[in-house]
Amino acid sequence: MPRWEPNAAGRLQDAALELFAQQGFERTAVAEIAARAGLTERTFFNHFANKREVLFGPTSERHQQTVAREIVACPAGTSPLEAVVHGLQEAADEMLEGLRASAARRRKIIEATPELQEREEGKRAALAAAMAHALRERGLDTDTALLTARAGLLIEQTAERQWVQPGARHTLRDLLSSALSSLRAVINGGPT
Amino acid sequence: MPRWEPNAAGRLQDAALELFAQQGFERTAVAEIAARAGLTERTFFNHFANKREVLFGPTSERHQQTVAREIVACPAGTSPLEAVVHGLQEAADEMLEGLRASAARRRKIIEATPELQEREEGKRAALAAAMAHALRERGLDTDTALLTARAGLLIEQTAERQWVQPGARHTLRDLLSSALSSLRAVINGGPT
Repeated sequence: MPRWEPNAAGRLQDAALELFAQQGFERTAVAEIAARAGLTERTFFNHFANKREVLFGPTSERHQQTVAREIVACPAGTSPLEAVVHGLQEAADEMLEGLRASAARRRKIIEATPELQEREEGKRAALAAAMAHALRERGLDTDTALLTARAGLLIEQTAERQWVQPGARHTLRDLLSSALSSLRAVINGGPT
Repeated sequence: MPRWEPNAAGRLQDAALELFAQQGFERTAVAEIAARAGLTERTFFNHFANKREVLFGPTSERHQQTVAREIVACPAGTSPLEAVVHGLQEAADEMLEGLRASAARRRKIIEATPELQEREEGKRAALAAAMAHALRERGLDTDTALLTARAGLLIEQTAERQWVQPGARHTLRDLLSSALSSLRAVINGGPT
């Protein structure tokens, strides 16, 4: 019988972030991650399908669901893009704001590893699909829903990038608002 | 000495598109692609690193370079986002407009294969990076260049999606213009 290990997933994620930062993603084995966390490989595989999923696990799925739920719940009379930003902000407050330090470490590891960048782009596409689905539930046609969701993704990427900068102080919620303003300026901007 | 084979890369790409469409990407072996094209596996590997690269080969790199060059060459006084759309349009005319049928087949194969979707997202990220680099050469700051490039990518994705629809008639150039208008409407839009 496997023992119950308190917060095994969190301990494995912390251990993986440490090891990936120290020695790189490719050079780190699952066995090392488990050992660093004081757990067995078997426990690792109870929580994650593979080494990559430590960085892209259940959190991103819960995040997608939260964003989608908040888009659907957003009061009528809100513009579709504002509903998306609202959804991202609610999910930011609920799930992400406390995790800035580990998000910053995670960002560095992903940026150093092309394989992980591709995986991340896949996850972003899944978030866009979830947001587009939620917008269709608000009555938007398919094309506009997709375009709005992708504009929302762009706002999310921009804000997240600033949020994990060393010394960054603004909340993710505030950075999402200012990324929306920046995107408006880019779209409507005149010559430089 | 390997024989020189006329248009080997193009023949291999056509054969691969046929086989991927018929039997799926995963179930197709490099040996089959080479045989269908009347070429050897060795010739295949002279042109492509692996099966995946038949779909993401030198064309996407040339496309990136063309877009970047046209962004840099765009007359001063053009807004950054318009310079990006101009670059995409010039590359569309120069490289893509004649390839709609194979682009449509390629799109279907990618949509049916998650591994290829992730690879494509990686290629899109590379295009965004090339466009951002070109915008910095026009004097834009890093953050605005990145955001503008990503907005351009969104326009490109939207237009390409419409361009490969069955029965689509508009040129990619025209679809890029109308995707820019649609994005402006989404960004500035009121409630639905």
